[in-house]
Amino acid sequence: MTESQFHGVIPPVVVPLDENRQLDLAAFERSINRMIDAGVDGLFFLGSSGEVAFLTDAQRYHVLQEAVAMVNHRVPVLAGIIDMETLRVIDQAKRAEGYGVDALVATAPFYALGGPRETERHFRDIREATKLPLFAYDLPVCVHTKLDPTMLVRLGKDGVLQGVKDSSGDDVQFRWLCLENEDAGHPLQLLTGHEVVVDGAALGGADGCVPGLGNIDPVSYVQLWKAAQEGDWKRARELQDHLARLMFVTRVVKATVGFGAGVGAFKTAMWQMGIFNTNQMREPVQPLVGEDVEAIVRVLKDNGMMDEDAPIRE
Amino acid sequence: MTESQFHGVIPPVVVPLDENRQLDLAAFERSINRMIDAGVDGLFFLGSSGEVAFLTDAQRYHVLQEAVAMVNHRVPVLAGIIDMETLRVIDQAKRAEGYGVDALVATAPFYALGGPRETERHFRDIREATKLPLFAYDLPVCVHTKLDPTMLVRLGKDGVLQGVKDSSGDDVQFRWLCLENEDAGHPLQLLTGHEVVVDGAALGGADGCVPGLGNIDPVSYVQLWKAAQEGDWKRARELQDHLARLMFVTRVVKATVGFGAGVGAFKTAMWQMGIFNTNQMREPVQPLVGEDVEAIVRVLKDNGMMDEDAPIRE
Amino acid sequence: MTESQFHGVIPPVVVPLDENRQLDLAAFERSINRMIDAGVDGLFFLGSSGEVAFLTDAQRYHVLQEAVAMVNHRVPVLAGIIDMETLRVIDQAKRAEGYGVDALVATAPFYALGGPRETERHFRDIREATKLPLFAYDLPVCVHTKLDPTMLVRLGKDGVLQGVKDSSGDDVQFRWLCLENEDAGHPLQLLTGHEVVVDGAALGGADGCVPGLGNIDPVSYVQLWKAAQEGDWKRARELQDHLARLMFVTRVVKATVGFGAGVGAFKTAMWQMGIFNTNQMREPVQPLVGEDVEAIVRVLKDNGMMDEDAPIRE
Amino acid sequence: MTESQFHGVIPPVVVPLDENRQLDLAAFERSINRMIDAGVDGLFFLGSSGEVAFLTDAQRYHVLQEAVAMVNHRVPVLAGIIDMETLRVIDQAKRAEGYGVDALVATAPFYALGGPRETERHFRDIREATKLPLFAYDLPVCVHTKLDPTMLVRLGKDGVLQGVKDSSGDDVQFRWLCLENEDAGHPLQLLTGHEVVVDGAALGGADGCVPGLGNIDPVSYVQLWKAAQEGDWKRARELQDHLARLMFVTRVVKATVGFGAGVGAFKTAMWQMGIFNTNQMREPVQPLVGEDVEAIVRVLKDNGMMDEDAPIRE
Repeated sequence: MTESQFHGVIPPVVVPLDENRQLDLAAFERSINRMIDAGVDGLFFLGSSGEVAFLTDAQRYHVLQEAVAMVNHRVPVLAGIIDMETLRVIDQAKRAEGYGVDALVATAPFYALGGPRETERHFRDIREATKLPLFAYDLPVCVHTKLDPTMLVRLGKDGVLQGVKDSSGDDVQFRWLCLENEDAGHPLQLLTGHEVVVDGAALGGADGCVPGLGNIDPVSYVQLWKAAQEGDWKRARELQDHLARLMFVTRVVKATVGFGAGVGAFKTAMWQMGIFNTNQMREPVQPLVGEDVEAIVRVLKDNGMMDEDAPIRE
Repeated sequence: MTESQFHGVIPPVVVPLDENRQLDLAAFERSINRMIDAGVDGLFFLGSSGEVAFLTDAQRYHVLQEAVAMVNHRVPVLAGIIDMETLRVIDQAKRAEGYGVDALVATAPFYALGGPRETERHFRDIREATKLPLFAYDLPVCVHTKLDPTMLVRLGKDGVLQGVKDSSGDDVQFRWLCLENEDAGHPLQLLTGHEVVVDGAALGGADGCVPGLGNIDPVSYVQLWKAAQEGDWKRARELQDHLARLMFVTRVVKATVGFGAGVGAFKTAMWQMGIFNTNQMREPVQPLVGEDVEAIVRVLKDNGMMDEDAPIRE
Repeated sequence: MTESQFHGVIPPVVVPLDENRQLDLAAFERSINRMIDAGVDGLFFLGSSGEVAFLTDAQRYHVLQEAVAMVNHRVPVLAGIIDMETLRVIDQAKRAEGYGVDALVATAPFYALGGPRETERHFRDIREATKLPLFAYDLPVCVHTKLDPTMLVRLGKDGVLQGVKDSSGDDVQFRWLCLENEDAGHPLQLLTGHEVVVDGAALGGADGCVPGLGNIDPVSYVQLWKAAQEGDWKRARELQDHLARLMFVTRVVKATVGFGAGVGAFKTAMWQMGIFNTNQMREPVQPLVGEDVEAIVRVLKDNGMMDEDAPIRE
Repeated sequence: MTESQFHGVIPPVVVPLDENRQLDLAAFERSINRMIDAGVDGLFFLGSSGEVAFLTDAQRYHVLQEAVAMVNHRVPVLAGIIDMETLRVIDQAKRAEGYGVDALVATAPFYALGGPRETERHFRDIREATKLPLFAYDLPVCVHTKLDPTMLVRLGKDGVLQGVKDSSGDDVQFRWLCLENEDAGHPLQLLTGHEVVVDGAALGGADGCVPGLGNIDPVSYVQLWKAAQEGDWKRARELQDHLARLMFVTRVVKATVGFGAGVGAFKTAMWQMGIFNTNQMREPVQPLVGEDVEAIVRVLKDNGMMDEDAPIRE
């Protein structure tokens, strides 16, 4: 396997909407350019942060078509092919391929219950039906299956998987995954999805990160990754501490829970920072308002992302 | 609200495949006719037992098109519109409506995490975007959300929901749902999805049942429901005991777990009974073989569904 | 195995405290006598409703000593021997035996994780170290293990278990447990812990019930069980519907969740009904106050347990 | 608050048994001395690794009495006071205090369900009833409650808690805990229980670690911690990688799951390395045998903990 192009900082792209809940192309391009200019190494579309679960197929491929054109080969484009079971995922894969993306990202099957045998067969089936590099997306909070490190490395050695986006929240198993992958000759690119502990993941051997918070502060993630690559762990930790505090935007939300608090906070922050024009969300999620917006602005100001005297947008 | 047509025995239809994993039309019609001839009150397509999670959209609507034609208005047709979040579900709803079904069945949103506010808005959004009677499908084992009885009755009173298919496995909350529904003037038709305890659910006030096992022995469910309607609870229990034992087909499977053991056992039973021509499953699930098939045949013979000297089909 | 004395209505006894959070002997005896006079078939002390988890060993055996004396052989006494793992449970068993109880009730091991092998060995170990009839307490909400019906019946046939108190909330597996137990010659007495669906459990073959709500309305449970024994299922359902509505005392609590809302509501109801002198709880749980008390009184009045014009005690 | 003595490497001590499942004093002292000689900063008795859930009170305090005497003030002794709810935990605390330990370690309440209000009150109650420094033990896999970082820091500022032993497996919340603790003036000593990712935890601001694997290789943990303190993260990672591979002793076990595989593997390793005389476990857990022992020896040899030609003990 040659040197992979999938490493470093690859934010999962948050997608702006206008007041009518339609794709806001100007804001989308502004945000994409802002991340590429900051030096990110790739962009991941149609992930959880990209509201993939909420989009119809038509909306998904509208996003992807625009995204591929806007990125225009400046960095690799990864695309989520998120659906319930194997044949539906393959359906998504074939369409995503048609839009010219560089890699696909698939979860384990969800909704209907299975076991490890079905999970492994699922990834092998996708591989046979598609051509692009394939990443496994380990996301038990949504998928309710934890991917086994040994299986993942086996799929890497067999050429099924190019890498893993690990959002499992299980740093012990991620460490074992790093070690097993190393022992096997490093077939997999291992990307952590946990933006709050990228420094520790890098120290443990991660090949990159997929930070949702990178939509808000891509520069700090690029610098953090650079510091880690150079072995400047003191600097990496300082940057990570800043970013971990900035992640409080998702912790100060009171009015709702889950996705609406998480991606809802990201959108609200980007709206207040002037990158997005609204903080609109897809049905049935509602945009954050009132005290939640104020609390998010407070976090942004405390962490240097907004001027202290900047007004709250309404 | 007028007398509903959605009550009694409404099996979720298991779908036969041929050796090439293509829809087996002859077996499908044989099984549908067998259930209608047994006296079922409706048929539910594209539910979990119908492998809805495993089918591409093209496959889903192929099934639905054939099903509507085969049923030909002899009984009401309910169709699952199972997808991750609201807009995707509405997309499914619009297509299902086009195929001439009589009612729609939707779960709470899944994959992305939400709260009760999002769940209620989800059903209201679907209602506004569609015309057909809408059932809520309470299936926490797949969806990871338990629907609150008070919310369901509120949605019934507001004309959002026609009824509930309860596969929550929570008989306490189902009883409360029955009582709250009664107090509100019975706006909802309440159908239990637990084929093993239909007698108790009927005693507690259920309006009907959606038994996957009804694909194998529809006659007994029709008789059980009739006995319950007539207050012959001794007879209802006897029939339920027979059916609860017959459900052991799903308990004797050793080689796999979850969906492959459950619907896999149903398909294997129907294949051995001569209703289906194979026990093929959709990817990534594999059909049961060997000792699992033998064990299922043993249960069928012990419970009078196959002649003791009938050979095992291979 | 001779005719068992463990059947019918066996309430888990809620324990009253005075203002200083000390055992209120007068109220305790009043409540015990009220239940025995109502015709219950046994009493279960040191269960979840008896706050067993909250009591020091000294407090546990104070309760048990007083309880055995107050009951004075009028009905059988069952005692919970609830602790983390096998040796600690045996320790509790030996002490409970010394107080003259008639049967012991033990859960699966909890806290440290194990598998089915350890669970089965646990019950066999307890059996070897004790003499009294032993019930398995299936309570996954506290213990995080679901007991397998086949294992339970095997332990019954081997003389390890006398019966099962099923608070698993899994009516499907309870039905299978009833059938497997029947096929094995009925070695186990099967008691449901779900006070809201006793009619359905009785229809399905339960030998008795352990209703926490039986502390509040023992007469209705005795009548319900009698109706079920006589095959008068219409009457059984009416009584169950009344009791299911009365259980709303636990659903109207807003200020807290879990145990404090459940047993807290029972204590508050019994206080307002004049059976208890306070609604005090054990640390760290606090007694319900204000609107929660009012809401509970509302449910009691709506269901005929308090006069409409009775004042709220403070 | 003065400079705390609770930092660095504080292994949770695994307790050896003889063939009759009695405490093996010689092996116990050998292992304790081996860890102190390696330079550990403290020892934690009666934790999960110390089989606390499996020991009767008599056995617990036998262990503690011997441990305090063997340690003889060479390092601080922490003692687990693990029980279900507040009053029982306080009972354990009072006894542990009597044995001359230096600090207490308590979990959130378990078994009966509560909420955050009860959890906070629980720790405050323990504080008021005891004198020794108190650590909160965050162990959701056993306790089924995750402790909230903001509550923990509040309890630290109020003088209730001395620190936290974090075995939550949630590195994101641990990072936030570190930051909130720092902002509050560092009232809490934060110890990670995850022996596989100590380097990352140290980089993120942990004050120490409580590695079960430290019973097997205390020297490497002491060196790892020293490297981290000196900012030699390259060396820290190398040592952590070695230790993460050594932790495979718990991953190669096939015959059982959970505690029996985890602490069972530790005991088996220490037996094979000649530190313990057996790998006996407490009821109902059985010692590992056969292929599991061989696989553990393989891991020990591959990671330099046993000579390649050392025979397997039987």
